[in-house]
Amino acid sequence: MSEPLFEKVALVGIGLIGSSLARVIRRNNLAGHIAISTRSPDTLKRAEELGLGDSYATDAAHAARDADLVIVSVPVGASEAVAKQIAPALKEGAILTDVGSTKTSVITQMQPHVPEGVHFIPGHPLAGTEKSGPDAGFAELFENRWCIFTPLPDTDPDALEKLSEFWRRCGANIDTMDAAHHDMTLAIVSHLPHIIAYNIVGTADDLQTVTKSEVIKYSASGFRDFTRLAASDPTMWRDVCLHNKDAILEMLARFSEDLASLQRAIRWGDGEKLFDLFTRTRAVRRSIIEAGQEVDAPNFGRQAVEHPAKS
Amino acid sequence: MSEPLFEKVALVGIGLIGSSLARVIRRNNLAGHIAISTRSPDTLKRAEELGLGDSYATDAAHAARDADLVIVSVPVGASEAVAKQIAPALKEGAILTDVGSTKTSVITQMQPHVPEGVHFIPGHPLAGTEKSGPDAGFAELFENRWCIFTPLPDTDPDALEKLSEFWRRCGANIDTMDAAHHDMTLAIVSHLPHIIAYNIVGTADDLQTVTKSEVIKYSASGFRDFTRLAASDPTMWRDVCLHNKDAILEMLARFSEDLASLQRAIRWGDGEKLFDLFTRTRAVRRSIIEAGQEVDAPNFGRQAVEHPAKS
Repeated sequence: MSEPLFEKVALVGIGLIGSSLARVIRRNNLAGHIAISTRSPDTLKRAEELGLGDSYATDAAHAARDADLVIVSVPVGASEAVAKQIAPALKEGAILTDVGSTKTSVITQMQPHVPEGVHFIPGHPLAGTEKSGPDAGFAELFENRWCIFTPLPDTDPDALEKLSEFWRRCGANIDTMDAAHHDMTLAIVSHLPHIIAYNIVGTADDLQTVTKSEVIKYSASGFRDFTRLAASDPTMWRDVCLHNKDAILEMLARFSEDLASLQRAIRWGDGEKLFDLFTRTRAVRRSIIEAGQEVDAPNFGRQAVEHPAKS
Repeated sequence: MSEPLFEKVALVGIGLIGSSLARVIRRNNLAGHIAISTRSPDTLKRAEELGLGDSYATDAAHAARDADLVIVSVPVGASEAVAKQIAPALKEGAILTDVGSTKTSVITQMQPHVPEGVHFIPGHPLAGTEKSGPDAGFAELFENRWCIFTPLPDTDPDALEKLSEFWRRCGANIDTMDAAHHDMTLAIVSHLPHIIAYNIVGTADDLQTVTKSEVIKYSASGFRDFTRLAASDPTMWRDVCLHNKDAILEMLARFSEDLASLQRAIRWGDGEKLFDLFTRTRAVRRSIIEAGQEVDAPNFGRQAVEHPAKS
């Protein structure tokens, strides 16, 4: 086991991402001390029951004090409040990072409050599940997933390298890009899929010609796939929608334009156009599997979970 | 092992569904003889290499001759051609069924060609994966999935019961409803999800501000889920779109209406409306898991496939 990378790491927020970090930090000995903080006393108590850290506080400033690395893992709409709260406690030379799904907004919210001498490096690990809370985390969450940094012009290269090394030891691959490009990219690969999933599940839930119990009984014919993303944390996703509005509206416009065109092909019976699209999209999944970002097993490998003896 | 239910079963079409049927019929001893037919000599050869049946023919009529049960598993657009071809070979008292995803169209296509004395019972097992062809099938595909029959007014109850027993022994649960209700129900639980998935993958594939390699690298943040349905068989899905047009257009209209409303909430920063929808949809997945139609494991249980030792 190598030396801990950091003396003290503070985790502000202990949901799916924060608690996965706590677990992998412990497993891989990445910190001498893990300080955990969350506003909710119940969640904090649960984190303590799970033994996720070495100290626990509802006050984020308390956890952040003397920390060499502070990782903020809260819904992006809470970023400014957290920054204000912890700013006075941050020590000279500390690295402050976050895991938020939108970067321009997080920078706007946090940057003005970061004290001189603290290295603020916005980050976003592209990993998650539809589950929330400290029980949902697991140490393998970041393995072979990408962690994107959107460094600021004056970011210290040594601090960036140290934070990169931390994430690599959590299992992640590192990329850097500017915040605007991150927000546009995530709008298509993550935000639009979630919004579309929420929407289709809402549409189905509202139907009266087809009953709710029919939607549920027959969901294995396709619908159930969308319910996974649509079961994601509502607070987190409300905040993403509110804090990456422009990029999301741009992607929604493109999606709707394409859907209108597809709908027209269905109405007019343009089988060739349908066949061409349906063939092109098939290749995309193949590329994702080859890139190691998806399992090749049919049905996402559900079979292996349902019939472990047979698979 | 109980007695075979049928002396001879003919499988017309040996793709994912047909070949899964072949495997479960063999495993559960449901037929004395399995006759396999497909138009493509290469596919037929592959079925023979896999040992899926007892006899093989490119001519569907040859397979259907003397069969007690004929199961047509072809893209729905090919239903009429198959019905015409096999009609003269069908024996008195035989049960003829199909597995097509649209029922009104299949009935319109096949019913006029069914000879007197043959029991035509349209059916649809709600089961599948994104894979196609005879290699993709597996005997467990229908376990705890629903098989819907849309019997005609003059359907013989004994024949329906016998076919139901067959599907139950394949592992399925049975429901019956009229064809129009089936088509409306499937439009929302299956056809719309596939169309939306194809569309979003197409939209992402067309982007130039975000590169294709970025879409693929970062797909684990949500997008990859949609690529599964969008990797489904293009011919099958072209035919579904062309043969359930009215119900699909109705569901697309509802979906687009809801999406416009959601988009407006994003534009105007209506966080409460977003939070309410995102909370309501979360409950739907819970119901599907409780109904045994989905695994409870996070990320569809991909973790179990990627890290079998740890899960």
